[in-house]
Amino acid sequence: MALRVGVIGGGQLARMMIAPAVELGLDIRVLAESEGMSAQLAATAVGDYRDLDTVRAFAKDVDVVTFDHEHVPQDVLRALVADGVAVHPGPDALQYAQDKLVMRARLAELGVPQPDWAPIANADELQAFLDDHGGRAVVKTPRGGYDGKGVRVVRAAEDAADWFAQTAEDESLLVEELVSFRRELAQQVARRPSGQITAYPVVETVQRDGVCAEVFAPAPGAAERLMRVAEGIGRQIAEGLGVTGMLAVELFETDDERVLVNELAMRPHNSGHWSQDGAVTGQFEQHLRAVSDLPLGDPTPRARWAAMVNILGGPADGAFEDRFEAAMSEHPDAKIHTYGKDARPGRKVGHVNAAGDDLDDVVYTARAAAAHFA
Amino acid sequence: MALRVGVIGGGQLARMMIAPAVELGLDIRVLAESEGMSAQLAATAVGDYRDLDTVRAFAKDVDVVTFDHEHVPQDVLRALVADGVAVHPGPDALQYAQDKLVMRARLAELGVPQPDWAPIANADELQAFLDDHGGRAVVKTPRGGYDGKGVRVVRAAEDAADWFAQTAEDESLLVEELVSFRRELAQQVARRPSGQITAYPVVETVQRDGVCAEVFAPAPGAAERLMRVAEGIGRQIAEGLGVTGMLAVELFETDDERVLVNELAMRPHNSGHWSQDGAVTGQFEQHLRAVSDLPLGDPTPRARWAAMVNILGGPADGAFEDRFEAAMSEHPDAKIHTYGKDARPGRKVGHVNAAGDDLDDVVYTARAAAAHFA
Repeated sequence: MALRVGVIGGGQLARMMIAPAVELGLDIRVLAESEGMSAQLAATAVGDYRDLDTVRAFAKDVDVVTFDHEHVPQDVLRALVADGVAVHPGPDALQYAQDKLVMRARLAELGVPQPDWAPIANADELQAFLDDHGGRAVVKTPRGGYDGKGVRVVRAAEDAADWFAQTAEDESLLVEELVSFRRELAQQVARRPSGQITAYPVVETVQRDGVCAEVFAPAPGAAERLMRVAEGIGRQIAEGLGVTGMLAVELFETDDERVLVNELAMRPHNSGHWSQDGAVTGQFEQHLRAVSDLPLGDPTPRARWAAMVNILGGPADGAFEDRFEAAMSEHPDAKIHTYGKDARPGRKVGHVNAAGDDLDDVVYTARAAAAHFA
Repeated sequence: MALRVGVIGGGQLARMMIAPAVELGLDIRVLAESEGMSAQLAATAVGDYRDLDTVRAFAKDVDVVTFDHEHVPQDVLRALVADGVAVHPGPDALQYAQDKLVMRARLAELGVPQPDWAPIANADELQAFLDDHGGRAVVKTPRGGYDGKGVRVVRAAEDAADWFAQTAEDESLLVEELVSFRRELAQQVARRPSGQITAYPVVETVQRDGVCAEVFAPAPGAAERLMRVAEGIGRQIAEGLGVTGMLAVELFETDDERVLVNELAMRPHNSGHWSQDGAVTGQFEQHLRAVSDLPLGDPTPRARWAAMVNILGGPADGAFEDRFEAAMSEHPDAKIHTYGKDARPGRKVGHVNAAGDDLDDVVYTARAAAAHFA
């Protein structure tokens, strides 16, 4: 019988696991939040991923449980593990992706380079951090943030007053040094439970309004040293945190040529969509292999350069298919991926990949094709 | 609403349309012959493709009807067209893939190079053909043959006696010259209803026991002239027969350097599986684009060489997943595709693709990885 991989969450990351699962011959099953989600085709259950009974019922019919997102509560995850379910990544690893304060503390123990940071319980502690860091800092809610939400640049203690007001007595916010960076990078690695790790080349990511807009792979102009340092950080974190499946490490390349860890994601990640059409093994196949404890695939790029451009918002009328004629006729080499989502300002509804020998051509193709869906 | 593509037939060709359909955002629906077929994940109906009511009910909920095989009867196809259903390829084209006598007669009209052939109604006519062709010939049943079935080499008229006995009064068998060929080739082209045609490079195919075993793309050592001639034949047949979707033209490269048409297939074809991992646009995406009358994708190879090796028969215990560890660990760059079928001697149950700069390496990888599933 085929290996049954259960994915909790029915978003586009689960959707994009369907293609490699079908080709390899894995039986992919999705627990979706509602009907009509992106991963609808593979949805075998609909329910609340925070409800233990719902998740338990889903988990009993699969060989391994993995995720479309990192929001499944620790108590639910640990109950599954206690039931003997294979959960990848497991709760011990996922806690570091779920709580940025726990993550910062652990990375500090590991000696991984990261921005100055501190837990802050009140305005006085924030002011003290501001005084030590040139009067500017980034305040983050430790939990639940994504795509720029739960992140705020502050220049005065009162800038975070509303967040402190919402923070429980025994809880803190995270404050970080506002890093002066040249650009943002992302390093992806895959790790299987039995320990094998394989790394993709470090990529450059461009965010707009806190949302990933474009990715260039490998990071243009990256020196051998930078590639090596980034890969080393990815491997160190995957091993140090016991990550299984895909790990994405978002990095700052600073003006003074340091590489600092910004965020972690323990699942396929927007920074790796290029690999679907640009690497021998795409990140979605790699994640399926890793969480199934199968040997990892070759992450080598298929072409010298690859680019990914997100389709943000989408056609106002939501009719992607009406844009296919123009986009495909002008860009026959563009690889168009859509997520079956309704258009909404700023929403990730698809992306376009391109790969080839010339970086400018590749970036132009991906941008121009994606622009047809704006 | 997403374009709804209805595929009649639930075999591996329908299965392999699922991945590109999901990525592009097409709503693929399959009419399967039974439960548990290869394309089960996308099966929205189960029934007999020869039953008009069954096919009609399936067709009314899709925007276009296409096929996993060429066996849907002409009267069913023509009824759909009369209903106003978009059927690609249509019955006028499919008749040439359904009846080899009709195909030979039409290719003769088009002046396409093919072996000497004749319709034969009895042993005397066969003997006359044998006498004219050195006492050897190939007899074929005009309808229903595939993977070598319905094809027989004969050296005497009585060798086909049983087939004549089964042939109706008003029907004939097809006899063809036994071509002395250097190797077999296949030329694939895609054509959309509005007329655009795009061609893949001609490939070399290796059959064993009448079944495709290996494919090398492009055909090694093919001269520019051969590539051009093969592409020209593919384009001429696609236009001359009004094919829509993927067309595969199986060719003999003769010892005296002619190229002769052997068989036609109007659907994705085993000779094009390499393109899933070896071309910018794989044949399954190309077929979906073509039958949906969308602009065709770039068929350019992603690498200098690609190879495809079929997994024939499969593991005796049917447990593909037990072979993944060894196959994937030894060949991380092999692209493994399985069809969700039970093992059976000689049955096509999967294939392995590999692509790269060195033909020997690519062929070795595909063969060695596929061998793990024997």
